[in-house]
Amino acid sequence: MIPGLHVVIPAGGAGTRLWPLSRSTRPKFLLDLTGSGRSLLQQTWDRALPLCAPEHITVVTGRAHADAVAQQLPDLAPGRLVREPSPRDSMAAVGLAALLIHAQDPDAVFTSLPADHVLGDDAAFAVALSQAVVVAASGVIATIGITASAASSAYGWIETGPSLRLDGAPDARKVSSFVEKPDPATAAGYLATGSFCWNAGIFVSRADVLLEHLAVQQPRLSDGLRLAADAWTRGDTLTLERVWPTLTRIAVDHALAEPVAATGGMAVVPAELGWTDLGDFASLAPMLSDLDGVSVLGPIEHVQAIDATGLVVTGDLRTVTLLGVEDIVVVDTADALLVTTREHVQRIRDCVDRWREQGRDDLL
Amino acid sequence: MIPGLHVVIPAGGAGTRLWPLSRSTRPKFLLDLTGSGRSLLQQTWDRALPLCAPEHITVVTGRAHADAVAQQLPDLAPGRLVREPSPRDSMAAVGLAALLIHAQDPDAVFTSLPADHVLGDDAAFAVALSQAVVVAASGVIATIGITASAASSAYGWIETGPSLRLDGAPDARKVSSFVEKPDPATAAGYLATGSFCWNAGIFVSRADVLLEHLAVQQPRLSDGLRLAADAWTRGDTLTLERVWPTLTRIAVDHALAEPVAATGGMAVVPAELGWTDLGDFASLAPMLSDLDGVSVLGPIEHVQAIDATGLVVTGDLRTVTLLGVEDIVVVDTADALLVTTREHVQRIRDCVDRWREQGRDDLL
Repeated sequence: MIPGLHVVIPAGGAGTRLWPLSRSTRPKFLLDLTGSGRSLLQQTWDRALPLCAPEHITVVTGRAHADAVAQQLPDLAPGRLVREPSPRDSMAAVGLAALLIHAQDPDAVFTSLPADHVLGDDAAFAVALSQAVVVAASGVIATIGITASAASSAYGWIETGPSLRLDGAPDARKVSSFVEKPDPATAAGYLATGSFCWNAGIFVSRADVLLEHLAVQQPRLSDGLRLAADAWTRGDTLTLERVWPTLTRIAVDHALAEPVAATGGMAVVPAELGWTDLGDFASLAPMLSDLDGVSVLGPIEHVQAIDATGLVVTGDLRTVTLLGVEDIVVVDTADALLVTTREHVQRIRDCVDRWREQGRDDLL
Repeated sequence: MIPGLHVVIPAGGAGTRLWPLSRSTRPKFLLDLTGSGRSLLQQTWDRALPLCAPEHITVVTGRAHADAVAQQLPDLAPGRLVREPSPRDSMAAVGLAALLIHAQDPDAVFTSLPADHVLGDDAAFAVALSQAVVVAASGVIATIGITASAASSAYGWIETGPSLRLDGAPDARKVSSFVEKPDPATAAGYLATGSFCWNAGIFVSRADVLLEHLAVQQPRLSDGLRLAADAWTRGDTLTLERVWPTLTRIAVDHALAEPVAATGGMAVVPAELGWTDLGDFASLAPMLSDLDGVSVLGPIEHVQAIDATGLVVTGDLRTVTLLGVEDIVVVDTADALLVTTREHVQRIRDCVDRWREQGRDDLL
């Protein structure tokens, strides 16, 4: 338990590259992608619980998913489930939560935890978070960076600067810059320097500090969010409906992290957390049961593999038999079956687009 | 219509290499494998109808499939649906039918047409068959050979000898020998000579001639079949049940065609019939609808292919999306999904064996 800490869980994002498992009505964060019996959102909740009181946990999600979220998180205080009228990217979601927390507790420090990532090492996370909270209390926005273990071009990277030399936060360093998903060669260069880590989108800030930065960097969004937060608090749905669609669509990284880093206001606590964003089917494999070289999400007794490698996602629907296929990815759902390869999982979006063009919105 | 001709359709064989589409309860001959709306059995029936009166068509099938056969062939005379208590290979089935036909019409000529093959050219078939009937009437057993178009090692071959010089059967030649499925090099040699054709298992004989050869070549089987035919005619189920399991399991090719050819009693009428035995999924492709390089059996609007080649078998169950897979074979059924490649379709039997070992008889 970290005294006074609030946790914000922005539960958004469709996870299109995980189609047909993830759908617009059943987005990634609601899915159990690790076979643990808990959805990614529930795992995030479980991660937050030891950090703060349950009534200090705020989940921001789309209106369409609010019922599912409430069902998955029965201990979430009803007033802490914030429904966005429509998706306006992460800055709107986090900014709204920050305003609500700030109104309740002007000195609050909060951390924003993506609802659809996996952390393998909760103890290491607690240590890193406690350092990040110390950093945040000092008025700097902290992020928890993931010690890079590969030259990944699927993630954004953080270039670390000198140590903050802050008591209670021995690992904290200044952020020199945030860099967008690099090409593989650039990523290899980053990895070689040893001074870069991955951006997992986990950050920690005083609510007032974040809101001040927001007012400077995105004044129109800041104003709009104040109207929205006020409307939400008063239950003024009409105003919320009117204001929300006017909010700037922008991610926290672009709205705050990058410009604030440029002025020296961001710090990073690098840590080894066994983190993955489970961005595509290939990234699921290490978490899953193995059947003769095939990773299986779902009842393994329904799968049979002969001279095959790859990944199978299945339910209780039917058996899956693989024969002589390499690096195959098979995702079997009630109404949509996808067969592709590890090499092509990044292009699953193309399939979704194709079905959309054909008017099959029921599959999206 | 060929006067006096009888047609025997032995409807047996599971078609294991077409699993999970074909099952023990839904064998290949009951399936529509060409998307024509007619099962292979029904297509065989349609082929027989112009040749003879419907009451001259006899279907021999396993007891387990009799109801399905009757349902698919509503015009089949009930007395012409012969139920085998258990599978005893093709000689028992054809021999029983020959006995029943001979008892009714001692001068009958009959043709045996496999229930699970496809002929693309019914007119050419009618011409070849009329020649074969002329040959058969002369007391020789005739087979219709398929003009070889490839060095196939999946079929048995027939070596042709000199012309019979028979009026009304200008294409008929002696059979020098029947050869079992050869290795590819041997098959290439056969193809090069131009004097070999494929054995499609279609033959034509006088019933008495066939039964005389059977009595010589397989006296025990011949005796057993006479008891069985008598029991069937009298409706003496007990005797049939007792005799049937004692019958020699042997194919017509081994029981009669090979030994009779060796003594000069077999002839062949080579013909181009657009024939295929649809032995495996790869052989289905040429008959099916094409979607961007993917052959589809089932509703094509449920399939989407991006940078993919191969074959999809689907039903009304769900959509199938292929992305970046080559020469893939996807067979989607209610309880079993198979993903393999064209190269591996010959080994599908291994998958069936594996499920059997795991006690999943429901999938077989």
